[in-house]
Amino acid sequence: MLRTNTCGELRIENVGKTVVLSGWVQKVRDKGGMLWIDLRDRYGITQLILEEGKSDAAILSIARGLSREDVVSAEGAVIERSSKNANIPTGDIEILVAKLTLLNKSKTPPFTIEDDTDGGDELRMKYRYLDIRRTPVRTALELRHRLSIETRKYLDSFNFLEVETPYLIKSTPEGARDFVVPSRMNPGEFYALPQSPQTFKQLLMVAGIDRYYQIVKCFRDEDLRADRQPEFTQIDCEMSFVTQEDVLQTFEGLITHLFNKVLNVQLPTFPRMTYADAMTYYGCDKPDIRFDMKFVEMNSIVKEKGFPVFDSAELVVGINASGCSEYTRKQLDALTDFVKKPQIGATGLVYLKCNLDGTYKSSVDKFYSPEELAKWAAVFGAKAGDLILVLAGGADKTRKALSELRLHLADELGLRDPKVFKPLWVLDFPLLEWNEDEKRFFAMHHPFTSPMEADFALMSSDPGKVRANAYDMVINGVELGGGSVRIHNRELQKQMFSILGFTDEEAQNQFGFLMNAFEYGAPPHAGLAFGFDRMCAIFSGKDSIRDFIAFPKNNSGRDVMIDSPSVIDAKQLLDLSLTINK
Amino acid sequence: MLRTNTCGELRIENVGKTVVLSGWVQKVRDKGGMLWIDLRDRYGITQLILEEGKSDAAILSIARGLSREDVVSAEGAVIERSSKNANIPTGDIEILVAKLTLLNKSKTPPFTIEDDTDGGDELRMKYRYLDIRRTPVRTALELRHRLSIETRKYLDSFNFLEVETPYLIKSTPEGARDFVVPSRMNPGEFYALPQSPQTFKQLLMVAGIDRYYQIVKCFRDEDLRADRQPEFTQIDCEMSFVTQEDVLQTFEGLITHLFNKVLNVQLPTFPRMTYADAMTYYGCDKPDIRFDMKFVEMNSIVKEKGFPVFDSAELVVGINASGCSEYTRKQLDALTDFVKKPQIGATGLVYLKCNLDGTYKSSVDKFYSPEELAKWAAVFGAKAGDLILVLAGGADKTRKALSELRLHLADELGLRDPKVFKPLWVLDFPLLEWNEDEKRFFAMHHPFTSPMEADFALMSSDPGKVRANAYDMVINGVELGGGSVRIHNRELQKQMFSILGFTDEEAQNQFGFLMNAFEYGAPPHAGLAFGFDRMCAIFSGKDSIRDFIAFPKNNSGRDVMIDSPSVIDAKQLLDLSLTINK
Repeated sequence: MLRTNTCGELRIENVGKTVVLSGWVQKVRDKGGMLWIDLRDRYGITQLILEEGKSDAAILSIARGLSREDVVSAEGAVIERSSKNANIPTGDIEILVAKLTLLNKSKTPPFTIEDDTDGGDELRMKYRYLDIRRTPVRTALELRHRLSIETRKYLDSFNFLEVETPYLIKSTPEGARDFVVPSRMNPGEFYALPQSPQTFKQLLMVAGIDRYYQIVKCFRDEDLRADRQPEFTQIDCEMSFVTQEDVLQTFEGLITHLFNKVLNVQLPTFPRMTYADAMTYYGCDKPDIRFDMKFVEMNSIVKEKGFPVFDSAELVVGINASGCSEYTRKQLDALTDFVKKPQIGATGLVYLKCNLDGTYKSSVDKFYSPEELAKWAAVFGAKAGDLILVLAGGADKTRKALSELRLHLADELGLRDPKVFKPLWVLDFPLLEWNEDEKRFFAMHHPFTSPMEADFALMSSDPGKVRANAYDMVINGVELGGGSVRIHNRELQKQMFSILGFTDEEAQNQFGFLMNAFEYGAPPHAGLAFGFDRMCAIFSGKDSIRDFIAFPKNNSGRDVMIDSPSVIDAKQLLDLSLTINK
Repeated sequence: MLRTNTCGELRIENVGKTVVLSGWVQKVRDKGGMLWIDLRDRYGITQLILEEGKSDAAILSIARGLSREDVVSAEGAVIERSSKNANIPTGDIEILVAKLTLLNKSKTPPFTIEDDTDGGDELRMKYRYLDIRRTPVRTALELRHRLSIETRKYLDSFNFLEVETPYLIKSTPEGARDFVVPSRMNPGEFYALPQSPQTFKQLLMVAGIDRYYQIVKCFRDEDLRADRQPEFTQIDCEMSFVTQEDVLQTFEGLITHLFNKVLNVQLPTFPRMTYADAMTYYGCDKPDIRFDMKFVEMNSIVKEKGFPVFDSAELVVGINASGCSEYTRKQLDALTDFVKKPQIGATGLVYLKCNLDGTYKSSVDKFYSPEELAKWAAVFGAKAGDLILVLAGGADKTRKALSELRLHLADELGLRDPKVFKPLWVLDFPLLEWNEDEKRFFAMHHPFTSPMEADFALMSSDPGKVRANAYDMVINGVELGGGSVRIHNRELQKQMFSILGFTDEEAQNQFGFLMNAFEYGAPPHAGLAFGFDRMCAIFSGKDSIRDFIAFPKNNSGRDVMIDSPSVIDAKQLLDLSLTINK
């Protein structure tokens, strides 16, 4: 070992010991008579000291030649520092260097290896191996490791088996676009990389594995939005002989365990909300409940008072920004500009100030009397000092816009503390979504999700109304994971494919292996998957997943460090029986 | 939960308890007045009992309709059995059924779900979800889970971080053939699936991660031999600031831990052998040392006695099959036939029987006097009753053939007990191998392996003689893992690529990202990777890895269960800018 200790472990009680440390030069301070080196490794920073006269001239000369990020090994005695540094755990001691070896020289790094770096995103991606040396990135990867270790510990204690499912599987046109892998041995044929191990984990239930999990890479060839990666990691789980309630308990238990073990945070019992309520009160299926500001629908009190915008609207709905009645014209204009942005899409914003003196001021007070405005305040339970903000229009679009406004306001008001965690189960999702472009239903979750028994009759009469045994776990307005009780009956699965517009032949061709398996004693089963990259970000109170992935790709799906994808040899193409279209 | 207990946990002390069990019907025995059902799940088998008169008629009728592999749920009281079954842990009790629910009907399975099944390989692969229900396959997957859990526990305790490296990387023509993934967003460009995370784990060392591991899928598009899979799993590890000795200690510790925790076997300290000795004494680089039968070279005592085969041979070498002097003509002929098989390739076999009466009998005694044959016996340390078997010819080929004969004989003699484990480190591998077809050197391990410092001078004068800081861990004649101290210096890496026939431009184009990284403070580092599928097989004393993989592919690289690879949509091809050659 090129060290006896790491750069993070020596303390005052080690004084007198002779040690060898190895690491990177963080900083050199040369005061002429004395020279200090901050030596860094993954575990911390330890100060080395050399002294003119006391230290060997050859060693001093090596030390004077050092620059940032050189790799060195230093041997010497641990001594007590004369001026201690309380900011680092090793701050009481330093190493009086007796031997110093330069293990590898470093060029000047293209950005500083500090917590706050001067490196831009693309530069940091290109030199990711330097970026990872920075504490924020390294600790992000350490957190990820800790979460995976604790996840496995918890699931193992509940008899879950980690089973590896294949990466070279079969392409199915349903759902998102697959990455495919040409088969050389079967010319003209392709494997696909899994978007999730969904069908395999269900087959493992048919196989009697009973409880399965896997921390597994998944792949989706989508046009990348910011913070989407073509490859991402799931904690994928499935259980047999369970009800929805068992799944909720088990995985609420997992997340509670993780918050407890990794962050020392005690989560409360997770509240539960139906999808319908989430849409009604928060305008989205993953409400952030760190703050209240629930939607109040106003159709019954605002219509037919002569204000054409409200009269013609399908939905008039508002929120109460408590304590904001003193908002200025400028602030209100900014909110109006916010909701009118194309990605929000509202046509305007109506406000009602519940002034501190008990009067009301609204942008529409020429249509509504003070008595009528008082009624508005009443339905919101608003008090003096509150500000009511109202949007109107088509129901879905207006809810979506108001949801954005709600989050935006909460950010402004500091109601979204990243150190506060409010988990939530959202239940009873619709089974299907109508796609207006393709004029057909799509599975809201996926085609293997079971309908609620109470809604069986609607399957043929009004499929759009059918609720699913599907659930999402949401924390702080972010979907952490989701799952469902699955279909385990061949006939129901066939009906589901038929509702989705598959012919029997297409269904058999693409998913025959699963439907056949259902005929050989498939147990009732249910499961769930967590987005692991996202989970890491949530645990850190961060928005972006990128720093929780060791080697992420950029928004064009490129790895700029290794410069991939890239062209391949003509010979390779020939072997694969492929030609690139010009 | 559709059960209160599993089918493996009820005991005599649970008598009187009302329970619900769910599982698969293993067997129904209907004796008219009484009816028993063996109910099976992952955890075991519990007997259900129904009695004419005592049990509800409707329930009896359900029970009589059951057949193998139906999925049922049964409620009833735990009672003591009148005739106990000592072969199963639940054999003291049975469940007197009060409620019985058929959860899912099963068709007759295509093969029996028993430890010894009547299903052939292809059938078992097609219905893998049924095959996994069989105890031998399920326990193989359980062993795999246990090994992965204990591996992580050990490495975590030594500060290794599990870091996920990317699956969509860059194709490099060096080494085995890559699977490639066309990029839709970058038409004409491809990702490659990793053959190992080698370069990424080295970059993690440059990044200061210090200790890395990953249990990770790797991919190789090779023509499949029996028991090779296009996707396979590695336990991949790397450490910084270490010597070769540290790596050997750490991973010897891991394997010792695994044998101890998973099999309750205490391994001894691993002996070490150089590659040169392994080749000299065992004719292969992964000797099975459960038995001795070392090679003895005979050139100095057999030449120039008039036997042309030996006189013209580059190498005459033999083994002593202790206690086999009574082998019959037929047995000796069978051994001769064995070595003459094309895949072994020897031209003949010479024997010397050291008879029990002290005389010698050899197939070549017309060329060698009894005194000379006594000399043979002496160099082998053979005693009366031993049988010496000798091959001759080109050195490499003859060693290889004798190695096969040695293993074959040991199998015949029962010297390869699968319950005995003899680990071994093989050290000092050659850095390079000469490829006669391509007239150039290839890296024996991979191009990132460092040469031994003592052999630096040979790098330019005689590269074929250079030994590497490379090591393999061998157990029972199987390579469990291997690794090396890596090059961490840009110039040495460049020299290595140049010896391998890369132009500077090719090296920079393919591995520039790594060589650039070496310029920014790369620490000395070393590592190793274990074949995880193989490890599972070794721990079970099995030869084939297939049953340790949940969903393996067949020898044509096909998943016959999901029928993959398969053709993809014309639209998908178009999106990828690809045409299939006719």
